[in-house]
Amino acid sequence: MKILILGGDGFCGWPTALRFAAKGHTVKIVDNLSRRKIDLELSSNSLIPIASINERVKCAQKLVGDITFEMADVATQPQELRSILGSFQPDTIVHFAEQRAAPYSMIADRERRYSVDNNVSGTHNLCSAIVDLCPNAHLIHLGTMGVYGYTEAFGEIPEGYLNIKINQTGKDADILYPANPGSVYHMTKCLDQLIFQFYNKNWALKVTDLHQGIVWGAATPETSLHHDLANRFDYDGIYGTVLNRFIIQAASGNDLSVYGTGGQSRAFINISDTAECVYLAALNDDFTPEKVRIFNQVAEVQTVSALAEMVANLFNAKVGYFENPRKELAENKLFVTNRGLKSLGFNPIKLSEKLVEEVKVLADQNSMNLNKHNLNNSPKW
Amino acid sequence: MKILILGGDGFCGWPTALRFAAKGHTVKIVDNLSRRKIDLELSSNSLIPIASINERVKCAQKLVGDITFEMADVATQPQELRSILGSFQPDTIVHFAEQRAAPYSMIADRERRYSVDNNVSGTHNLCSAIVDLCPNAHLIHLGTMGVYGYTEAFGEIPEGYLNIKINQTGKDADILYPANPGSVYHMTKCLDQLIFQFYNKNWALKVTDLHQGIVWGAATPETSLHHDLANRFDYDGIYGTVLNRFIIQAASGNDLSVYGTGGQSRAFINISDTAECVYLAALNDDFTPEKVRIFNQVAEVQTVSALAEMVANLFNAKVGYFENPRKELAENKLFVTNRGLKSLGFNPIKLSEKLVEEVKVLADQNSMNLNKHNLNNSPKW
Repeated sequence: MKILILGGDGFCGWPTALRFAAKGHTVKIVDNLSRRKIDLELSSNSLIPIASINERVKCAQKLVGDITFEMADVATQPQELRSILGSFQPDTIVHFAEQRAAPYSMIADRERRYSVDNNVSGTHNLCSAIVDLCPNAHLIHLGTMGVYGYTEAFGEIPEGYLNIKINQTGKDADILYPANPGSVYHMTKCLDQLIFQFYNKNWALKVTDLHQGIVWGAATPETSLHHDLANRFDYDGIYGTVLNRFIIQAASGNDLSVYGTGGQSRAFINISDTAECVYLAALNDDFTPEKVRIFNQVAEVQTVSALAEMVANLFNAKVGYFENPRKELAENKLFVTNRGLKSLGFNPIKLSEKLVEEVKVLADQNSMNLNKHNLNNSPKW
Repeated sequence: MKILILGGDGFCGWPTALRFAAKGHTVKIVDNLSRRKIDLELSSNSLIPIASINERVKCAQKLVGDITFEMADVATQPQELRSILGSFQPDTIVHFAEQRAAPYSMIADRERRYSVDNNVSGTHNLCSAIVDLCPNAHLIHLGTMGVYGYTEAFGEIPEGYLNIKINQTGKDADILYPANPGSVYHMTKCLDQLIFQFYNKNWALKVTDLHQGIVWGAATPETSLHHDLANRFDYDGIYGTVLNRFIIQAASGNDLSVYGTGGQSRAFINISDTAECVYLAALNDDFTPEKVRIFNQVAEVQTVSALAEMVANLFNAKVGYFENPRKELAENKLFVTNRGLKSLGFNPIKLSEKLVEEVKVLADQNSMNLNKHNLNNSPKW
């Protein structure tokens, strides 16, 4: 298969690109290197040093498989995107090219606007280009569990569509699960969903939307092959995801920063499973595009406080409870199905002390790169 | 009240600006003149000649009230928008600054992207600016009945929120009516809705979203005061709305172009009622922003074929049935409530032979401006 990976230099994109190449597919990465540039803006960094994109690709070509790279901005350079789609003619397009941090999207006007303009224009430019230039390509998009929000009255979170009864007519219907985002970032993924719905309805665009949980870990079998293939590891309060942040806080002798009571339940997935799930979705593409296919890309549900206690016990650290900088439910239950990807062969990697310790080893090896000022720099909203 | 009217040079914006000024309010129009520029691109024109924005405003200051104008692009010049909001400190902001033609949005990639980028970035720039600079201002947005689509199983179209039962829990909920747009343009208004929902939830942004039916007519009491105040009148297949197009086709000796069987039911409103409804929504702003207030801004429901027959009989014209260039239900029923605006005093102007004849008089007086090539130039989708 020919796979185009938009945002293939990022935290989820890079391991996914390597996974496809390792399995023998022809991979082209398109990226504007925005994540590296945002590091510069935020004075933040990846704890694990990452090679330049050219070094990455050179090393991957030697050790992994067929990967090429092209620099382009999907949101602001639609003609470049069209030219790539037209000439490469991908079978599958994986779309990671979005600003992906909720805290970043809530810093101030500039970051709110960047998140919306980048994510919505990027997704729409892509859909508009596909229907013209490679209408049979399969588009796989990284969504987020955050599109659902935490509405306990709705019960277990289904895969994208909610079965309801219309009270005034008594008729049943399956509707797109009502959007309930908690940040501007999550809101953009809700907007993406409506774009997919319409392009699917009007042009039969074939889309799989993967609503992913919170990713943890950094390494995959492929990124571990060589230090030039290493994946980025964000530990700051803006881009660092919660479990990774806890591990780094513990490893660096700081208290773990739990927001509020830690009674928030969230869905989690290991970074290696991100690559695996996208791979499974791409491979199993024999569905008719009658509607957008939506899967929940999650391995398990945990409360934030349970994660914090696990990490604290393991590394003899302390848990600090901070005023929650976010507007969110203090505590919630969460039930979510992941039967779609499981039916395609997904066998989730669950949290275990052993795996958490492996992440800490990575953290310890790279502790010289830690900037402590960034451990608790989340904006308030 | 101080009223900021974004898109105040357009077909709905201009009569609305005049209405507020006539009632003694302080009006500032912001517009990028995009509608006039699109006329140049499409080789189309307003049947009724319209004065330049400077002539319009000069005449309005003499004959109507306090109106000023500032040139800015809400979608691409967020800093200009912020500067205006900060210094003018409006009580009410009316947001018409969107590309508003479904056929335009379906021409090709360029127009699809323009519609999304302009409408979504514009709406979001505005929300992001309001919460920083005039957080208590009341935002009134022109939505569209097209966000609802035509899902007969859902029953009478409520005002924005649908009462449902979640089948897996048996619990009731009011949800934002499931989006079912029929064009990229309509899709953008669905995206707008999600932006309003989130800014309302997170920042208590006070929003009224007016889901308007198809507008007909061109003149209002205020635009009729002087030829420099005249409103634009679109008759082409791209920007001309259906009843106005029928009248011009009849007036110019052409067959009325009905798409398909004409069994499509649509909601209609007269242009003077557009101004009146926005005025009523602005005046009656003593609601707490617990949620986005949504009204259906419609006067009545008609089938396209009933409209065509009425116009054909009145002017002794013929009805032509053409292959439908659009993807839409061939025929549909439509029940829609408008009780919200009625409760604020809205007394709808209904279609009548007398009013339709008045529009034809305008058409006849300006027949020298008609470009027949534009009567049936709708794109196919």
